[in-house]
Amino acid sequence: MTSQPLSPHPDRLFPADTRVRDITRELYSQVKDLPIISPHGHVPVEWLADDIPFTDPTTLLLTPDHYTNRMLHGAGGVELSELGVPVGTPLNEKQARHAFRLLCENWKYFRGTPVQFWFESEFHDVFGVKVRPSAETADEIYDQIAACLEKPEYRPRALYKRFNIAALATTDDPCSDLAGHAKLNSDPEWDGRVVPTFRPDAYLEPARRDWVELTKKLGELTDTDVSTYAGNLEAMRKRRQYFKDHGAVSSDHSHADARCERLSDEEADRLYKEAWNGIISLEDGAALRRHMLNDQARLAVEDGLVMTLHPAVVRNHDTAAFERYGADVGGDVPHAVEFSRSLRPILDSYGNADGFHLVVFTMDETTYSRELAPLAGYYRGMYVGAPWWFIDETDAIMRFRRSVTGYAGFYKTSGFIDDTRAFCSIPARHDVARRVDCSFLGNLVAEHRLAMDEAVETAVDLVTTQPKKVFKL
Amino acid sequence: MTSQPLSPHPDRLFPADTRVRDITRELYSQVKDLPIISPHGHVPVEWLADDIPFTDPTTLLLTPDHYTNRMLHGAGGVELSELGVPVGTPLNEKQARHAFRLLCENWKYFRGTPVQFWFESEFHDVFGVKVRPSAETADEIYDQIAACLEKPEYRPRALYKRFNIAALATTDDPCSDLAGHAKLNSDPEWDGRVVPTFRPDAYLEPARRDWVELTKKLGELTDTDVSTYAGNLEAMRKRRQYFKDHGAVSSDHSHADARCERLSDEEADRLYKEAWNGIISLEDGAALRRHMLNDQARLAVEDGLVMTLHPAVVRNHDTAAFERYGADVGGDVPHAVEFSRSLRPILDSYGNADGFHLVVFTMDETTYSRELAPLAGYYRGMYVGAPWWFIDETDAIMRFRRSVTGYAGFYKTSGFIDDTRAFCSIPARHDVARRVDCSFLGNLVAEHRLAMDEAVETAVDLVTTQPKKVFKL
Amino acid sequence: MTSQPLSPHPDRLFPADTRVRDITRELYSQVKDLPIISPHGHVPVEWLADDIPFTDPTTLLLTPDHYTNRMLHGAGGVELSELGVPVGTPLNEKQARHAFRLLCENWKYFRGTPVQFWFESEFHDVFGVKVRPSAETADEIYDQIAACLEKPEYRPRALYKRFNIAALATTDDPCSDLAGHAKLNSDPEWDGRVVPTFRPDAYLEPARRDWVELTKKLGELTDTDVSTYAGNLEAMRKRRQYFKDHGAVSSDHSHADARCERLSDEEADRLYKEAWNGIISLEDGAALRRHMLNDQARLAVEDGLVMTLHPAVVRNHDTAAFERYGADVGGDVPHAVEFSRSLRPILDSYGNADGFHLVVFTMDETTYSRELAPLAGYYRGMYVGAPWWFIDETDAIMRFRRSVTGYAGFYKTSGFIDDTRAFCSIPARHDVARRVDCSFLGNLVAEHRLAMDEAVETAVDLVTTQPKKVFKL
Repeated sequence: MTSQPLSPHPDRLFPADTRVRDITRELYSQVKDLPIISPHGHVPVEWLADDIPFTDPTTLLLTPDHYTNRMLHGAGGVELSELGVPVGTPLNEKQARHAFRLLCENWKYFRGTPVQFWFESEFHDVFGVKVRPSAETADEIYDQIAACLEKPEYRPRALYKRFNIAALATTDDPCSDLAGHAKLNSDPEWDGRVVPTFRPDAYLEPARRDWVELTKKLGELTDTDVSTYAGNLEAMRKRRQYFKDHGAVSSDHSHADARCERLSDEEADRLYKEAWNGIISLEDGAALRRHMLNDQARLAVEDGLVMTLHPAVVRNHDTAAFERYGADVGGDVPHAVEFSRSLRPILDSYGNADGFHLVVFTMDETTYSRELAPLAGYYRGMYVGAPWWFIDETDAIMRFRRSVTGYAGFYKTSGFIDDTRAFCSIPARHDVARRVDCSFLGNLVAEHRLAMDEAVETAVDLVTTQPKKVFKL
Repeated sequence: MTSQPLSPHPDRLFPADTRVRDITRELYSQVKDLPIISPHGHVPVEWLADDIPFTDPTTLLLTPDHYTNRMLHGAGGVELSELGVPVGTPLNEKQARHAFRLLCENWKYFRGTPVQFWFESEFHDVFGVKVRPSAETADEIYDQIAACLEKPEYRPRALYKRFNIAALATTDDPCSDLAGHAKLNSDPEWDGRVVPTFRPDAYLEPARRDWVELTKKLGELTDTDVSTYAGNLEAMRKRRQYFKDHGAVSSDHSHADARCERLSDEEADRLYKEAWNGIISLEDGAALRRHMLNDQARLAVEDGLVMTLHPAVVRNHDTAAFERYGADVGGDVPHAVEFSRSLRPILDSYGNADGFHLVVFTMDETTYSRELAPLAGYYRGMYVGAPWWFIDETDAIMRFRRSVTGYAGFYKTSGFIDDTRAFCSIPARHDVARRVDCSFLGNLVAEHRLAMDEAVETAVDLVTTQPKKVFKL
Repeated sequence: MTSQPLSPHPDRLFPADTRVRDITRELYSQVKDLPIISPHGHVPVEWLADDIPFTDPTTLLLTPDHYTNRMLHGAGGVELSELGVPVGTPLNEKQARHAFRLLCENWKYFRGTPVQFWFESEFHDVFGVKVRPSAETADEIYDQIAACLEKPEYRPRALYKRFNIAALATTDDPCSDLAGHAKLNSDPEWDGRVVPTFRPDAYLEPARRDWVELTKKLGELTDTDVSTYAGNLEAMRKRRQYFKDHGAVSSDHSHADARCERLSDEEADRLYKEAWNGIISLEDGAALRRHMLNDQARLAVEDGLVMTLHPAVVRNHDTAAFERYGADVGGDVPHAVEFSRSLRPILDSYGNADGFHLVVFTMDETTYSRELAPLAGYYRGMYVGAPWWFIDETDAIMRFRRSVTGYAGFYKTSGFIDDTRAFCSIPARHDVARRVDCSFLGNLVAEHRLAMDEAVETAVDLVTTQPKKVFKL
């Protein structure tokens, strides 16, 4: 079998109808070269702070991308360890090449998935690859990318510039010293923008086995007595401020549900004491967590950090894989979630408060038209925050717009979130969103539901003013 | 910035593909001028009974439309009071003009929403406005509409005729004397049809604080001893008959869930006594309510009133707004609902009974293909009753047809429900439904799934025979 | 009214856009004549084992098809008994003709449903009917089909060949002797493939009134002491092997939910004893059933039978109809279901085990993108097993592909399942799936998301290698 060419079509993802496609192409031409704003992701700040060359194609492109790993495992039967999982495992050249070959050999399993689009775009646009991945072309592609990675223009900062990134957020532990961010920001050579994100999930789960230990660390770091609920709140306030001082614009939260009802002060104190003594039940732990989440919203009204929420995922579904490889290796599975009643305590108290922004993400698409868009359409501070994890593929983004727009319009949505660890896929991921948003808008124009000048302005707003406004960037 | 023209395209909402559009246009030409049947809505009968001129554009078009208010609040940050909320607040000319300006200034927030379509159609078709709403054009549009409202052809009855309304239903308290309906029907000048609807929600919630008071009023009005469950049932029977005698064709029901299981007579008596003594628990109140709803179905088999059901909404989600402005100001938010098991008691008992019609509405779109269409496809008396609130926008109607048709066809759906307080938007709302239904049918024809003669007949049936049959009009 | 012609268009169900349609037509041309693989259905094996001519059009086409019956009942108001329900009721010629007339008279109620497509295809392609069903044409069509059924080429085996069926699965009680299968397989004239399916639902519901009786029968048949849980498991192991020896490739399971958590051995023994003594509660019965389902998965790892699961249906929703006509007459109604947490015990233990295949079907479309595709994308042994009951119609199949492909690709789906009792509709049902899959693929090609050679290979795989691999055929 001769190798097939790889030449991503300029019109890819656009609607097939030629009239709609022409409109879409025109819209896309207005946004395709605009800078990327990435307010939520997982790229390590050290890559940019240290600007050390990437070691090999597999470590850069394959290992950190759990989208790809999960399907190579599920459809291709590949062992995660063969792919260099967990991140940080040193791979020699033979191992890296073998992993890359597994990707190429199993290429057909990615048909119709976003992984296909992302890799095609990365391979072609970033590394100049011109052949379709396959068993035959695996080594050739590997070699070509490896050769690129030796050049200075493929070092992290050079790529950041080339990718035209205007702002990039990392995700960080509340006790992180944010040294990488400090280093980067104090570097006179650096004129990009990388901001940390306050992610206190573990600190808000009082029934976790490591909660007391984590909380004590929080207390020490902030020089605060955290043996009482009031002290804990104060420590949280200080760390949020620390993050804000280091450039953070948002806090990020993911728990089993979206509930946030307050306890009475007495009840909160009582449960906190039980947690502090390591004897809180799972049920009471959840009750206290909901109260603590409510207080995060209260703190957000004070300090202005945007609050993002993406609940309802079974983390590490495959116990054996978790024990062997740790978290974030592709075994997270969403489940159904409720928002209308769950979010009421926060929205009722703060939903219209000055400067309070709540951005809600979900993988439960049923909530878009039934709950999230109705809520965002009404409350001033609430935004529907997708596309996001899994909802970042073509058809899902189209469903998102079709479900949300009628009830919340365009201006109560957050703009695209790439949420990725795969640095080189950032442009491709944002490109998908831009192409699909333009397709959606192009359809509205073709169906005489929107004038062309309105569509152009909207397309531009969605990648410029809107994410800046929602995330206060 | 010069003002943009407002000229709604004759083909708006039609599919972009030219071949499908041609078919759709042909289908639409068969239905666009057919009379409007509106079997569920909230226009005050007094407007037509008294035929008093509308005072100003804001009071007529903006204040009563919670679709618009909620988004001006949520996206535009407008205070509801600035829009004349609650309905009935007197506005002076300056206030009315200011509110109208807020609508026009925030016009971009409505892009892609049905509000945009409705206003464009109303402004253009009803009032002859030729410029797009904006800060610049706000006063000009206001003046033009205000001038219209002074003319006799813009009085309520004249508009009713001009809108080509064949039947219009209001929504009424069971204790209402229906004086407006009586006045209208006895007016020899009046040849339209406005019918009341029996809406006993509050009377079926025994745990409500005002339930005893309401029930006593019901007893007095019907001269019935309502201190027992049997008496309550008898009073309900009488008021339903009173409504029927005044032209009502249906009762309307909205509760937290769709459950309707019966209690034993003894248990019903016991709980009723507790309710009568004001000591029923929330849980028992719900149990009794479900029993009472079941009895509404039983009464419907007797008296033939169509039963409509639209459960599962968090009413008045924003407590502060509710306390300040009251109900129905845009803060209702749907939540998930279950039908397959919940409706079984009613369907099992009456679902195939002669003359029993149950029309079920929902905002939980997930139930269409999973529950409602399978139920309606099987039970003789059951109909899927959307489009309706929120599901009355273009993409949602298309999803509705795509989800329901395969399992229930066209002839187990109710026809379009506008459910509106915004009188002048009635033609535009029905027009959306007609355009989308024709688009859906046009697609079926273009995909060779339906012959053109079948599509034409179906399109016409959906706005004529079908709503007449389902609602016994 | 003159009768309308019946001439199904060669391009039916294809996208309307001419460019996409051309691509789709090309794809379809590659798959339309490939043999049918039907790994799950309900055609009686005796039809093929005995090869007795079908008696009349109604008994063959109408009575066994609950899709049709339910809508004739629900929309047409027809009594099920008029249609020959339950299956096996002898019909004289007058009754059969009357039933057939009811179908034709009520033809408009099937517009836009798959029933319309199936009958149009069957009537035209199998029986050469050239007029549209209607009151006027009912007798003519009946006569034409009846005349066909007298010919040898319309006997079951001849139709099996003509339908180009490569493999057909039946559904069987664990205690069935599979005599029909044995007879067929030992017939030297027969060169087709019909395999039984192990369906132990009733035997896994310890709280059913007939469970003890069924279980005793199972014990006798396997010569096993089934008074203990271990004995029950052993009896199950033997019957699964018996089925496997008779050609079975899968077991099939449908319960109220998808839960499968294990009990401790002691708890399982205790509950089993209660069940054996006929005193187990509903709740404990469900707990034991979940444990038993888990053990079916364990047995599947041993014996290699594919496990298919399709939970969450309210069976026999209409009690009166059930009492009069029995099960499977159209009164089954799906309800919502949860998979992410429910399936974890099985997936965590066996999801990546060699040879374990779990194919999950559902009517709750919300689970496709949220739960099933994420699970199937990750676990080696899991496949998303629709289209299937209700999801076998055009728009639903398209939604299925659009929801699943982004997260699981094409190669973690099972291929089409017809699940039908209506033998003559099998080609039409598979044809729908092929047409829609090609339409979906055609769209991907037209939108430059897939190369044509990839689309062709995928279309062919979906009806050949994929079902063979998933079902080990």
